[in-house]
Amino acid sequence: MKYRLGIDLGGTTAKLAVVTENAKIAKEGLVATSGFPNPAQLATKLAETCKRLVVGKKVAKVGIGVAGDIDSKRGVVRVSPNLGWKNVPLGKLMQQKLKVPVVVENDANAAAWGFYKTQVPSSVKNLIVLTLGTGVGGGIIIDGKLLSGATGSAGEVGHMIIEENGPLCNCGNRGCLETYVGGPHLIKKVKVDLEKGQKSSLQNIAIDEITPRILADAANHGDTYALSIWDEVGHALGMGIGDLIYILNPEMIVFTGGIAQSKDLILKPLQRTLAKRAFKTPIQAVKIKIADNAPHVGVIGASLL
Amino acid sequence: MKYRLGIDLGGTTAKLAVVTENAKIAKEGLVATSGFPNPAQLATKLAETCKRLVVGKKVAKVGIGVAGDIDSKRGVVRVSPNLGWKNVPLGKLMQQKLKVPVVVENDANAAAWGFYKTQVPSSVKNLIVLTLGTGVGGGIIIDGKLLSGATGSAGEVGHMIIEENGPLCNCGNRGCLETYVGGPHLIKKVKVDLEKGQKSSLQNIAIDEITPRILADAANHGDTYALSIWDEVGHALGMGIGDLIYILNPEMIVFTGGIAQSKDLILKPLQRTLAKRAFKTPIQAVKIKIADNAPHVGVIGASLL
Repeated sequence: MKYRLGIDLGGTTAKLAVVTENAKIAKEGLVATSGFPNPAQLATKLAETCKRLVVGKKVAKVGIGVAGDIDSKRGVVRVSPNLGWKNVPLGKLMQQKLKVPVVVENDANAAAWGFYKTQVPSSVKNLIVLTLGTGVGGGIIIDGKLLSGATGSAGEVGHMIIEENGPLCNCGNRGCLETYVGGPHLIKKVKVDLEKGQKSSLQNIAIDEITPRILADAANHGDTYALSIWDEVGHALGMGIGDLIYILNPEMIVFTGGIAQSKDLILKPLQRTLAKRAFKTPIQAVKIKIADNAPHVGVIGASLL
Repeated sequence: MKYRLGIDLGGTTAKLAVVTENAKIAKEGLVATSGFPNPAQLATKLAETCKRLVVGKKVAKVGIGVAGDIDSKRGVVRVSPNLGWKNVPLGKLMQQKLKVPVVVENDANAAAWGFYKTQVPSSVKNLIVLTLGTGVGGGIIIDGKLLSGATGSAGEVGHMIIEENGPLCNCGNRGCLETYVGGPHLIKKVKVDLEKGQKSSLQNIAIDEITPRILADAANHGDTYALSIWDEVGHALGMGIGDLIYILNPEMIVFTGGIAQSKDLILKPLQRTLAKRAFKTPIQAVKIKIADNAPHVGVIGASLL
């Protein structure tokens, strides 16, 4: 049996997995990744763990998903703020150590690919995956292929601009989709409102303990203010998704990540916003789903790149 | 030698062309298309003209570009407001008459395909074509293939929403890209401003004679007001294009159509707006071009579908 190896390389840990031909995890490992300003050292540590995981197994290919701006054609990490890397030829470094072909992709793209290969019906050939968490990431499948684009930068949907003069984003621009949906942005807004005296059951909770989860609980218990916050999230997502549907006309859009777990609190206002769009054919053709948390989809997706 | 036949089917005329293997027009024709509420009659007339054009030539395939909502998989015109059609099986109708395979596509998609096949370097595999005229149409090429999507509706970039509470669009929504760029929208805005007493050299022109061309001439002669109007056009386009680049990461974007002929009046503010985007890699990778008017690109594109 032939195996593939996937690595989901983040700023604090890397998940590694040996994956079977049927996209099942045969063996997995973890490597702490913080504090490696010298990329070659981290590559050495990753390669050692890889070799340990694959002992006795024939591995045909290694795929790595990395958060950041990735040149997937040349296997280079152009910039990864989380790792503190710039222009690191990660593909080459790992290939020299492992002696098998190594593919490097953006982590959101790898996760989208994992979703496409393992979680959706085979009739779906055009799919958008949006990861709603601290930030908003995306990956796009067109006609059964991962959309990479001219420089491997495609799918940066979290920084579509929803409102030109909207809130300041971490990227430096204003009104990006992420500023309406990303967890820290939500919490910041709620804190400001509560400190201004906003009426809400959330006033009974220590302000620094409020999380998106608590915000969702309050809304599910009927708190009008909390509901209004989720309405705004769903509306902003509906605006962004509406444009994406007009541009790409996919069969399916999947939301994943922590914020997506608020489910109907997001989906209902999103659907209301989408229903206002004039062209019905592409809007009615798309299935919008919230995925259950699938923590392995990134590493499996990387292995299948 | 084998030929293909292209038809660019609009609400007032249909352009027909017999096209060689090298994408050159061997013979062409025109059919008036208004006043055919019965689609079968128009199909008969089109087929007769086709037969006349191809006498003595072996035609392998017919491609038709139609303005409207097209089900390209089944060759059905779902809705064409210009033709007054609903659910017309145009592909089948024509195939029965011509006895060769017939492909039906949205006209903007056909034109984008024509551009891709005849007007851009072969290194370009990801291309967006925007037609800036009365409306704003689009067609998208991904990895060398026309992006059609789940229902053939992809590429509807003219109705991306730039500003939620913006001007009312013909589609019924507000703030679509088209409301900032489409010729009639521009002229309407200029008329309102001039009637309010806006200072401009355009005050010397009878208000009903002002066209986008005249508006461009005024700007090129230094009229501050006219320049400000084109700045808004370029800025709105820059906002829309910025999102498209983040989503699709193409090598090239081409503008065509009458409004695009204002060239630098649009491109300069567009580039200023684009330059503000935070992620430089995809922004710097894209070439933005204004195509010279290429009136045959639609019919050639249709023939090559």
